[in-house]
Amino acid sequence: MRISIIGSGNVATHLGKALYASGHEIVDVFSPSAGHAGLLATALNARAITRLSQLSPQIDLCLIAVKDDVIEDLAADLKLSHSMVVHTAGSIPMQVLASSAPAYGVLYPFQTFSKSRQLDIAQVPFCLEASDEETLRSLEQLVADLGARSYVLDTDSRKALHLAAVFACNFTNHLYTLAESLLREKAIPFDLLRPLIGETAGKALEGNPFEAQTGPAVRNDQKVIAGHLRQLEGKPELRELYGLLSESIRKTHKK
Amino acid sequence: MRISIIGSGNVATHLGKALYASGHEIVDVFSPSAGHAGLLATALNARAITRLSQLSPQIDLCLIAVKDDVIEDLAADLKLSHSMVVHTAGSIPMQVLASSAPAYGVLYPFQTFSKSRQLDIAQVPFCLEASDEETLRSLEQLVADLGARSYVLDTDSRKALHLAAVFACNFTNHLYTLAESLLREKAIPFDLLRPLIGETAGKALEGNPFEAQTGPAVRNDQKVIAGHLRQLEGKPELRELYGLLSESIRKTHKK
Repeated sequence: MRISIIGSGNVATHLGKALYASGHEIVDVFSPSAGHAGLLATALNARAITRLSQLSPQIDLCLIAVKDDVIEDLAADLKLSHSMVVHTAGSIPMQVLASSAPAYGVLYPFQTFSKSRQLDIAQVPFCLEASDEETLRSLEQLVADLGARSYVLDTDSRKALHLAAVFACNFTNHLYTLAESLLREKAIPFDLLRPLIGETAGKALEGNPFEAQTGPAVRNDQKVIAGHLRQLEGKPELRELYGLLSESIRKTHKK
Repeated sequence: MRISIIGSGNVATHLGKALYASGHEIVDVFSPSAGHAGLLATALNARAITRLSQLSPQIDLCLIAVKDDVIEDLAADLKLSHSMVVHTAGSIPMQVLASSAPAYGVLYPFQTFSKSRQLDIAQVPFCLEASDEETLRSLEQLVADLGARSYVLDTDSRKALHLAAVFACNFTNHLYTLAESLLREKAIPFDLLRPLIGETAGKALEGNPFEAQTGPAVRNDQKVIAGHLRQLEGKPELRELYGLLSESIRKTHKK
């Protein structure tokens, strides 16, 4: 496929490089910043552009990989009469693209991308939605070219997945941060906690987290819980979180 | 060393096997259940006992690996005049062992143990506390024999670590469970979430979780947050958790 990429951030970079490496041609890379566009375009052997009107009309696919909250405005400015257009966002409905091109869809790579970490794109699940069957087949082929698996999810299900990711990724990482702050107070190195973080995730990767639950709340060990709450005196925020999460564990496992 | 083990659960089993494999002699395995004691004793080429009074006096170390809430009562019944005695619990002070033996301490393997998962004991950090220098040196040697690293932590620090583990392990696992329940409602397979869980932990294993934080709360993306809260209507518990964790992220990253 001949593909143009709108965006130059983490998702645009990881996806662009993977598509290029799998044999697709990257035509344009758009960013309002010429420097950013130029950097990624050079890596992808593409042309850097800084205005949407410069997009080549001779492309098969326009891939929008920008922040969720600017997609709708950007789509309103985009008119492609001969291409597919897709966005890569979990929280944005497919229909915002309906007036941008005759064929449109969503290609949502369900992973947390970082600039500094290598990522095996073949291990990323791709969530697809499309305006029609032919577009869906094209997107499935694209994902297969990357060696990855695709899942067909409508906008509603994709939103549920996006929300679940906030719990399993964003909130989880914040709990690591809170744990780190508790250790820092006693000058205990975070290294001590790393094997436990790895093993906890490792269990969820292999099995069912409901069955893997351990700790005082699931045992309803009130003595340990009371001790922990005493340790959290003077930290009202952590205390409230501890209480709420423990109560949630208790309720979930009581059913 | 000649070692007797009190307990036959996950920690007793994993530690007992590792100590036996590293060349130590396991003398007795105590459990009030003859079946449990017998099973582990057979694996460790040891004698199964069901009463504490049957403990051989000719041992160097008595290792108490039972549930936190029964250690104190058990220690009160234990009188060893020629051995070290240690417990393996995060939340229990070392001093509960003061009247059980002339030398005592804590050997707290900081990991979540499961019956069904293999675990490389060399990757487990051991937290040590001891009544005297000589006992500490003996415990450090024991940990070194297992190929693992030891950290010297007093009771107060060990309690902080135990509390941090509830956040980083027990609560984290519960967030996986909650995410799974959100997916189940839409018949989305949990498999889709697994790579994200792996990568989130992977980032924390390599770097600093504070810097790795992503998601709508750290970006203070009120539009996405409001959308998620709407999705959680009718689920007051999840809604409260979402609000509290998002607020905690916002505050933590505002400082």
